[in-house]
Amino acid sequence: MNTPLILVTNDDGITAPGIKALIEAAQYFGEVVVVAPDSGQSGMGHAITISKPLRMLEVKGLFPGVKAAYHTTGTPVDCVKLAVDQVMHRKPDLLISGINHGSNSSVNILYSGTMSAAVEGGLEGIPSIGFSLTNFSWEADFSLAVEVAKKMIESVLLHRPQPPFVLNVNIPNCAKSEFQGIKICRQAQAKWVEKFDKRVDPHGKTYYWLTGEFVNKDDGDDTDEWALKHNFASVVPVNFDLTHYGWKEAIKNWNL
Amino acid sequence: MNTPLILVTNDDGITAPGIKALIEAAQYFGEVVVVAPDSGQSGMGHAITISKPLRMLEVKGLFPGVKAAYHTTGTPVDCVKLAVDQVMHRKPDLLISGINHGSNSSVNILYSGTMSAAVEGGLEGIPSIGFSLTNFSWEADFSLAVEVAKKMIESVLLHRPQPPFVLNVNIPNCAKSEFQGIKICRQAQAKWVEKFDKRVDPHGKTYYWLTGEFVNKDDGDDTDEWALKHNFASVVPVNFDLTHYGWKEAIKNWNL
Repeated sequence: MNTPLILVTNDDGITAPGIKALIEAAQYFGEVVVVAPDSGQSGMGHAITISKPLRMLEVKGLFPGVKAAYHTTGTPVDCVKLAVDQVMHRKPDLLISGINHGSNSSVNILYSGTMSAAVEGGLEGIPSIGFSLTNFSWEADFSLAVEVAKKMIESVLLHRPQPPFVLNVNIPNCAKSEFQGIKICRQAQAKWVEKFDKRVDPHGKTYYWLTGEFVNKDDGDDTDEWALKHNFASVVPVNFDLTHYGWKEAIKNWNL
Repeated sequence: MNTPLILVTNDDGITAPGIKALIEAAQYFGEVVVVAPDSGQSGMGHAITISKPLRMLEVKGLFPGVKAAYHTTGTPVDCVKLAVDQVMHRKPDLLISGINHGSNSSVNILYSGTMSAAVEGGLEGIPSIGFSLTNFSWEADFSLAVEVAKKMIESVLLHRPQPPFVLNVNIPNCAKSEFQGIKICRQAQAKWVEKFDKRVDPHGKTYYWLTGEFVNKDDGDDTDEWALKHNFASVVPVNFDLTHYGWKEAIKNWNL
């Protein structure tokens, strides 16, 4: 096998410590190309940039040993599209996204730029993995996350799963001595309960900050939330055929 | 049953003809509250606004007969969250999003603000429907789309499906005389092949416009793409448990 070609992106921006950690993990296994946003893109979900043009510039010297690194003005999904169409000389063997500062378990996959980049990789037929550490801090310790990332990268390169293949990997914020291993899970059925923080600006006008509380009423022991709570890394394989086949059969009786 | 309470949003913005058509359809069945973006938000997917505050203002006189209408600076998903937390006095009986100017069939559900608003409604436990017409024009004829929307709104209010319940409804751009009816479908396995249009600005610097070609290699006659091509309206029930249960079993052999 030729040296694997690995595309790396994220949603926290090209200067985030998490992407640096992930690039270092990827360099053990292959040649690395980085295409990442030039600023934070958390919560951008699967957004793409249609109504304005994008900029993309090569960045030299930031990541020693990589084949190339670019930052763009776009979303994480834009970065994947730009990489595939404008940067890569061939289809990558693997796309990895992250390591996100903060978890992307359960329904957070829908809001997550990190995971949307991985899903976009899946749509492109590239085996793809999104990594997130359950610690929002810029000073978080990524050493356990890097160990998990190495294990997952090695496994996917070894098994060469037939696309579409996308994984959502979350790593608990625990000491290595407390880590329980890697657990294959389903997405927990949880949700955010919104609570906007309503304020008045110095000019007397109202504005709102989005805040909320994450509520998990899914008590299954096979969920990503259960795994993380018990110091496992969670691995959820991701599907982007969103058809609800149960309802598809059920509403046939509606005489539409 | 009390008068149904219907929340209406979209991604083309509160002044788009499509939302006006949808509001008029909804008013046949219940009391309508509108919370929609103040400008176009196409392609925003499931993006939420975290790093800046949101504004929301009541709009009077735009939609005669509605209970209330607001426009916000946020994404379609932000609009749903603001509506649920700050506007509605109770959980709506139905959320409808659209009518989008342009189709949201197949994988376009991932990029679509219209459909992400409907999915967010589903997460909130509100039966939700996204509507899209396969015509991008601001001058499109929405009369067939309104007929389909009325049929769907009536059916969901009648059957009161147990949440989570989300539908992706696309209406073909054909004459009423050519319309073949409503077809329950699965999401076609298609994708976009990106082709960025690379240009040089007046200052000599490069920029990129996202363009692409939609390629459908899924020849099933039960897909949304098939239905639309044959002048049916497509109805795809939508799931937001993204777990790929097939891969979940298969990778258990990987010794992770």
